[in-house]
Amino acid sequence: MVTFAELERVRRRSDVARKSLAGPETPLIMNAWYVAAMGEAVGRSLFSRTLLGRSVVMYRTASGEVVALQNRCGHRSFPLSHGTLDGDTVVCRYHGLRYGANGDCLALSDGSEPRGKMGVHRFVTAERGPLIWIWMGDPKLASATPLPHPEWLGHPDWDFSIGYAEAKGNYVHLHENLLDLSHLTYLHAKSFGTPEYARAPVEMDIKPDDIQVWRNVQCVLPELYAKPLGWVGKRAMRRSGSQLVSPGLHVNTGIFENLELDKQPEPQPMVKVAQLITPETQHTTHYHYALCRNFARGDEAIGKQMLAGMSNAFSEDLYALEQQTLMQTASVEADDFYEFDIPTDRAGLEMRRRFKQWADAERVPGAAKEN
Amino acid sequence: MVTFAELERVRRRSDVARKSLAGPETPLIMNAWYVAAMGEAVGRSLFSRTLLGRSVVMYRTASGEVVALQNRCGHRSFPLSHGTLDGDTVVCRYHGLRYGANGDCLALSDGSEPRGKMGVHRFVTAERGPLIWIWMGDPKLASATPLPHPEWLGHPDWDFSIGYAEAKGNYVHLHENLLDLSHLTYLHAKSFGTPEYARAPVEMDIKPDDIQVWRNVQCVLPELYAKPLGWVGKRAMRRSGSQLVSPGLHVNTGIFENLELDKQPEPQPMVKVAQLITPETQHTTHYHYALCRNFARGDEAIGKQMLAGMSNAFSEDLYALEQQTLMQTASVEADDFYEFDIPTDRAGLEMRRRFKQWADAERVPGAAKEN
Amino acid sequence: MVTFAELERVRRRSDVARKSLAGPETPLIMNAWYVAAMGEAVGRSLFSRTLLGRSVVMYRTASGEVVALQNRCGHRSFPLSHGTLDGDTVVCRYHGLRYGANGDCLALSDGSEPRGKMGVHRFVTAERGPLIWIWMGDPKLASATPLPHPEWLGHPDWDFSIGYAEAKGNYVHLHENLLDLSHLTYLHAKSFGTPEYARAPVEMDIKPDDIQVWRNVQCVLPELYAKPLGWVGKRAMRRSGSQLVSPGLHVNTGIFENLELDKQPEPQPMVKVAQLITPETQHTTHYHYALCRNFARGDEAIGKQMLAGMSNAFSEDLYALEQQTLMQTASVEADDFYEFDIPTDRAGLEMRRRFKQWADAERVPGAAKEN
Repeated sequence: MVTFAELERVRRRSDVARKSLAGPETPLIMNAWYVAAMGEAVGRSLFSRTLLGRSVVMYRTASGEVVALQNRCGHRSFPLSHGTLDGDTVVCRYHGLRYGANGDCLALSDGSEPRGKMGVHRFVTAERGPLIWIWMGDPKLASATPLPHPEWLGHPDWDFSIGYAEAKGNYVHLHENLLDLSHLTYLHAKSFGTPEYARAPVEMDIKPDDIQVWRNVQCVLPELYAKPLGWVGKRAMRRSGSQLVSPGLHVNTGIFENLELDKQPEPQPMVKVAQLITPETQHTTHYHYALCRNFARGDEAIGKQMLAGMSNAFSEDLYALEQQTLMQTASVEADDFYEFDIPTDRAGLEMRRRFKQWADAERVPGAAKEN
Repeated sequence: MVTFAELERVRRRSDVARKSLAGPETPLIMNAWYVAAMGEAVGRSLFSRTLLGRSVVMYRTASGEVVALQNRCGHRSFPLSHGTLDGDTVVCRYHGLRYGANGDCLALSDGSEPRGKMGVHRFVTAERGPLIWIWMGDPKLASATPLPHPEWLGHPDWDFSIGYAEAKGNYVHLHENLLDLSHLTYLHAKSFGTPEYARAPVEMDIKPDDIQVWRNVQCVLPELYAKPLGWVGKRAMRRSGSQLVSPGLHVNTGIFENLELDKQPEPQPMVKVAQLITPETQHTTHYHYALCRNFARGDEAIGKQMLAGMSNAFSEDLYALEQQTLMQTASVEADDFYEFDIPTDRAGLEMRRRFKQWADAERVPGAAKEN
Repeated sequence: MVTFAELERVRRRSDVARKSLAGPETPLIMNAWYVAAMGEAVGRSLFSRTLLGRSVVMYRTASGEVVALQNRCGHRSFPLSHGTLDGDTVVCRYHGLRYGANGDCLALSDGSEPRGKMGVHRFVTAERGPLIWIWMGDPKLASATPLPHPEWLGHPDWDFSIGYAEAKGNYVHLHENLLDLSHLTYLHAKSFGTPEYARAPVEMDIKPDDIQVWRNVQCVLPELYAKPLGWVGKRAMRRSGSQLVSPGLHVNTGIFENLELDKQPEPQPMVKVAQLITPETQHTTHYHYALCRNFARGDEAIGKQMLAGMSNAFSEDLYALEQQTLMQTASVEADDFYEFDIPTDRAGLEMRRRFKQWADAERVPGAAKEN
């Protein structure tokens, strides 16, 4: 039994630990690429979404280029997305200010040009395959930071299908969830977990610029994979990996081998999931996931089925995140918060340490201000 | 394009400007007359409303006099408006404390008189025409401050009809909205704005005790005015004015001339709107508007029609206020707030400067405390 | 009339008084016994409830013993109550951590034993009659503090029936409500109050370890009591008492004498109500009430009828508490809060003084930390 006095010590230790780990209250990391939207969601009308706490309005110019502007009119804060797209310009519905695609204010209420420069910020975006990526931080740093878009997403050798959900929790919890898949056996017992999963040995590969966690799990594959592979009821080796790529991207890989076949299919069946994690606010997260496979190619019914199964499994994660958030918030309010760590948290703790350092680095006074 | 570094400068400049301008966080101005209610809303039963952040209970004595008391029982905070009006006294429903019309506690639970003076504050009120005005600040200052009630509201030469709505935003935004009617062309394009409005030259008359903005707009009058005047489709001159009278009152005037007639009607058709603006809380506003006209006299159907049209137009303003408030709040939270000003903001900025000074003056320690 | 300047003084005096009186913002008293649940609510499944701001999961072991653990998994804050009860252990649904009935973590995700001691706190509980009591504070102090369970609750000489409601207000308000029953005449005019109640003389007996308030009220008993006694319409003496026993228990007593009978029934008819008051959070309260009677013994219909009548009366108290809370909160926000006291508040004020001292004493640095 944890005594009252021990609890007090645990709480104090936990407070100290949290000072060096990212958590729900850590400022969001601005200087990183995040998915803003699926390309197909943005067209010749105004579409708005809050990204990293800032409302953004998106549209395509007549020539198809993606534009992402501060959605708040710089004059009296009306949402530009409630106005009209006129050619490639946006007209605010309140006082009629007109903004060009680069964010400059081109005309005031009476049609005159503004005296002096005024406008709203245009965010850097990059469209790759089915995704629009956005850079919300210092634009000078964007070009120096490679887009984390995975080459296989949108590549002709892979089929993909993309789902979306909003998570009621901080994005760090979602990364942490993905870096310890022990939870497949418990949280996902009825979806894509199996009893063997949590007991399989864990390989952690923690490098300065990469964090990966792998397991080999001998099991009867869960139906989500077994059905499209035609392996229902067969013993298989499931090699399962989690890779933290950036604050906005995490990749999960599944590599499957049928242990009851002499000759394996070619290429070896694989699933790759691009976990596209974009903070909406400090406490909510846009969650796109692109499920890619190199088998059952071109079979739309299987694509839909697998996406539905994965969406169902991920809804279990979102439920866990929401519950975790509720309990954390209440216990912090009651001055009773602490958490202890277990060996499988090592990769997640390292991610949280890095995210905290990156967030802190962006807050060094004077840093990244001179463009 | 507004660069990242420019944005930072704009934000800092905006922060400095806000220090001298009233906005959603500026304390409300207590020492001013505000409309508490329409006279017809207050009778021989208890009616409560929050005004300037304070819950007020109102009723009429047997002789018809209006009483406005602090609604919170001074004993254990139960709302007096949930109790009963007994003659001219109010009995609290919780412990039965009885208060006279002057706010004094007359009897305790057991019917005995309280030892020592105790009671609730009675606010100064004044009934004029269809309105009850209230003074929530230092009562000593009330008599020295003329009631801003406009002479034409309730005057036999004018017909009036009054509407009410609750605005989900700070009252300063509503005053600002009314001091720049450029927005008629955009926000009210489908109600009472016309394309010419925003392009018409603006006359601003900013005096120490008065702020007025006028325009002459040649146009086909919007239906709201054209129909009751019988001028549908006719070219007209619309002389349109905004006047800031006090924190609780703004007057809009429309003066109409038919440019296709040789002989104008007598008297010249006019609309005057008393915009009765009473902060409910820091972030919500009671909005009464009294629409007065000197034409189509006595025609109730026209009165109703015009009020309905105006209510519809004003609902567009309330929508703008709510959106502005949502966007401002979110951007302040994200430490990303700024606003730039345009020439037509000059009157509004002057109003905000004065309101800020008045609010600050009320906060000078020791001021207005010795009555 | 209370002048503006007097109001200012009243507010300042009230601020000073609040410094020594418990109120909605006073920290909850941890070192006391509170009712956690009715015994029948806890069985062989996981049941959770927030008590004193902390989420608690409760269940019975196979042998029937009550277990109350911190509901928040010590690892990643998932609610244990959403997991499963496996024998006498609880398995977290997120990562599968298993906890024993004493709160120790017995196994990690992979089934291995944790290195080092980790777990969640088990709260001290005691089951008496129909109730489960809990001690949320320092367990060392629990055994030295007698359980306040009243001997007559569950005693064979008394019939009981228990109701429950959640109060939307701080528990101190509920104690204060119960220590001044003057409000029966007003708030409960239509349920169990009578006009004579508030006028009856009050006997207050304030001792260092006990606070009692008594009244003798000659009246026609309210139907709630008159009907089961068969005294409808008869004059009676109602001796009515309130006793503060502990932060978690208040006892109300009614002793009835029929003034129109020569020979009184034996034993003298009495009602005792154990008011079981458990803070859920700073601003909400679990309210169990056990209505006990020594007449109409064994008559279930009468038990139900009386409980329904009492629940109806208590819903009036909860409405008062909620209104009081709303008005207090708004007036504190508007910097306009004060309350004045009347003679019948003496017992309640004494209770608030004691609760404040107890809460403060728990906050003395270093106190009660070394077990």
